[in-house]
Amino acid sequence: MTVTFAARGDHHEIEEGSALAPKFGPDGLIPAVAADAASGKVLMMAWMDATALSATIETGEAHYYSRSRKAMWRKGESSGHVQRVREIRLDCDQDTVLLLVEQVGPGACHVGYETCFYRKVVQADGGVALETTGDKAYDPHAVYGEP
Amino acid sequence: MTVTFAARGDHHEIEEGSALAPKFGPDGLIPAVAADAASGKVLMMAWMDATALSATIETGEAHYYSRSRKAMWRKGESSGHVQRVREIRLDCDQDTVLLLVEQVGPGACHVGYETCFYRKVVQADGGVALETTGDKAYDPHAVYGEP
Repeated sequence: MTVTFAARGDHHEIEEGSALAPKFGPDGLIPAVAADAASGKVLMMAWMDATALSATIETGEAHYYSRSRKAMWRKGESSGHVQRVREIRLDCDQDTVLLLVEQVGPGACHVGYETCFYRKVVQADGGVALETTGDKAYDPHAVYGEP
Repeated sequence: MTVTFAARGDHHEIEEGSALAPKFGPDGLIPAVAADAASGKVLMMAWMDATALSATIETGEAHYYSRSRKAMWRKGESSGHVQRVREIRLDCDQDTVLLLVEQVGPGACHVGYETCFYRKVVQADGGVALETTGDKAYDPHAVYGEP
């Protein structure tokens, strides 16, 4: 890791300053949202450790940290569906990252959809349910192999 | 809380099913991203407990959980900048919520900007820094009182 992050300053510095001082949680991770740079559509939410954020800044390709695999991964390393980063934004508290990306390939989601957020909450039978919006953009089995 | 969430099923049920089975973390929270329903612009990231998610579904207004105050809050309860929820989406793993909202008032961010993501990472002096993009949409001191 060669990108150096600033120490967390006071409230004003964090919110209004120009020092990049991301807040990683007790687990060393910061949430990262990826949205399509052209359409604005939110594609996915994942996590980054300091190494993944640094690699994203340095390479211009989205890197995340897998909590289940306990390892950094480059988005698209197995599917080819990489994310070219057009802009990296931090929020007011600098505890969330937003990537504005060009999504290479048909989609960001391993289930086969353009976006991971392919279902919406609807009223159903006096309760709530999920309803899928739109069709799959690709066949995940053809990309990732049979399950 | 009157909304009943389903138990977490197997991988296939969670990803392809119609049962709303959100995964709350060990702290009882799930990350929630709010984006403008019209423009797609990502406005903020916050957290929800089961009660906040339930209240959001029931009332159609965004409710979150404040980790610092350890309490649920209704977005805009002090500023008036409420979020009218047009759609609630869950991601593939059902461990992130996306709200597509109509943001009432000039902005979602307490610092005064339309979006909390008002700064981008730029190269600076051989390192990295944050650069503010755009102007404040309102004077936060006029809304929240002097700091």
